[in-house]
Amino acid sequence: MKKAFVLSYLGTAYHGWQRQANTDTVQQRIEEAVLKVCGHSVYVSGCGRTDAGVHARYYVASAPLDTSIPDARLPAALNSALPSDIVISKAVTVDEQFDARFSCISKEYTYLIHNSRSRDPFYIDRAYFYPKPLDIDAMASAARIFAGKKDFASLMSEGSPVKSTVREILYCTVTRTARDVIAVRVRADGFLYNMVRAITGTLVYCGLGKLSPDDVAAILAGRSRCDAGPNAPAHGLYMTALTYGMEELDGQSEH
Amino acid sequence: MKKAFVLSYLGTAYHGWQRQANTDTVQQRIEEAVLKVCGHSVYVSGCGRTDAGVHARYYVASAPLDTSIPDARLPAALNSALPSDIVISKAVTVDEQFDARFSCISKEYTYLIHNSRSRDPFYIDRAYFYPKPLDIDAMASAARIFAGKKDFASLMSEGSPVKSTVREILYCTVTRTARDVIAVRVRADGFLYNMVRAITGTLVYCGLGKLSPDDVAAILAGRSRCDAGPNAPAHGLYMTALTYGMEELDGQSEH
Repeated sequence: MKKAFVLSYLGTAYHGWQRQANTDTVQQRIEEAVLKVCGHSVYVSGCGRTDAGVHARYYVASAPLDTSIPDARLPAALNSALPSDIVISKAVTVDEQFDARFSCISKEYTYLIHNSRSRDPFYIDRAYFYPKPLDIDAMASAARIFAGKKDFASLMSEGSPVKSTVREILYCTVTRTARDVIAVRVRADGFLYNMVRAITGTLVYCGLGKLSPDDVAAILAGRSRCDAGPNAPAHGLYMTALTYGMEELDGQSEH
Repeated sequence: MKKAFVLSYLGTAYHGWQRQANTDTVQQRIEEAVLKVCGHSVYVSGCGRTDAGVHARYYVASAPLDTSIPDARLPAALNSALPSDIVISKAVTVDEQFDARFSCISKEYTYLIHNSRSRDPFYIDRAYFYPKPLDIDAMASAARIFAGKKDFASLMSEGSPVKSTVREILYCTVTRTARDVIAVRVRADGFLYNMVRAITGTLVYCGLGKLSPDDVAAILAGRSRCDAGPNAPAHGLYMTALTYGMEELDGQSEH
């Protein structure tokens, strides 16, 4: 039976989601847990291929499982075979056609910037420490330029071939979530490789006054990666919400 | 010249504040940083002897330093010689009589309980995971019993000889800081060994309905450690605020 799982993970110890030879990944850990609990090997599909160090507060994975464990008890059974930094909170039986990646309608990523003169030990590996003052209103104005169905070629890193560089951003907001923390939230129907990190790097330039909202519009029109800001580092990035059009799987992080 | 430092640390990697043979402690790391930066050994006094795994979001230490580095640049100089999980945010020149421990007028500790059916990887080592439902109103009512100048003998662990077990608790509150996080905040003129962890363990029993506010009053009157709840684990405890009656040093954590 095809099962879907809602999970969260602290990405610090992993080389991202996707299984790779000789490195520790989240996908591999979950596949190993299934092998231990259900007794068979399986390919676990994930909603997104997060990079090394990227976190997930709300993530969905799916796999065909051969098990008699009821859905209500499956999370505890699998968690007992998982390290403590990966936690499955829900299991749902889904159609055989369901796939965590291809069935996904929209995803939200949140990028956290710790904007303070002084480092904070509690944000190590969890937010991008940026000590220069950032104009959050300028960042929020520029963020609105990204919304809509647009060509995001200038905000994609090389390395992942795609048919089209057009994506629809449903919203891109910049808000202060604590005195010294700025959150960039982006929801889209899909993301190009490193797109949220490039958007954040570009918004940081806007916050410094290096780029204006008009510059951002020109960067999108120019379709050249060189015009935009640098990728913000991986450890500030979180997968935070997903939509599948299914009440049992749709949701968002509460933090 | 005597200097006082405001700092914060993630306690996970340390065997508490106090220097001990063959273990890694926060005090030792700061003394080593002073040796590297100022070129002399020193005893650094801390506002409290936190246990292994306990965190500090607002902590004050003091030491006589022989340095020409101005106070404004001293934090950066020392931080460059400290691991990233210990961060000094301020240095202040103080009277020779000042001592971070003995000059302290009041301290606040905050204890975080992650009260949820499911674990959260982002709270590992940072909050006490407690999956059974807790009645927060019952906990808050019982917490009020602790306030005042009282004998806290029943809430002290063995191991640290004291002249008196009387302390004055300025407030003890229980609040929900997120949907699944309960914070116990206690401010007092001083604390007995493991007092906040014993108070929290007792309040958890109140939240389960095992103890009533009247029972708490009886526990205090009885002066026996066996009557109170067990110590809540160290990793949920944070030093969060301090008062010295000095504007430059008084403060509290912003998180």
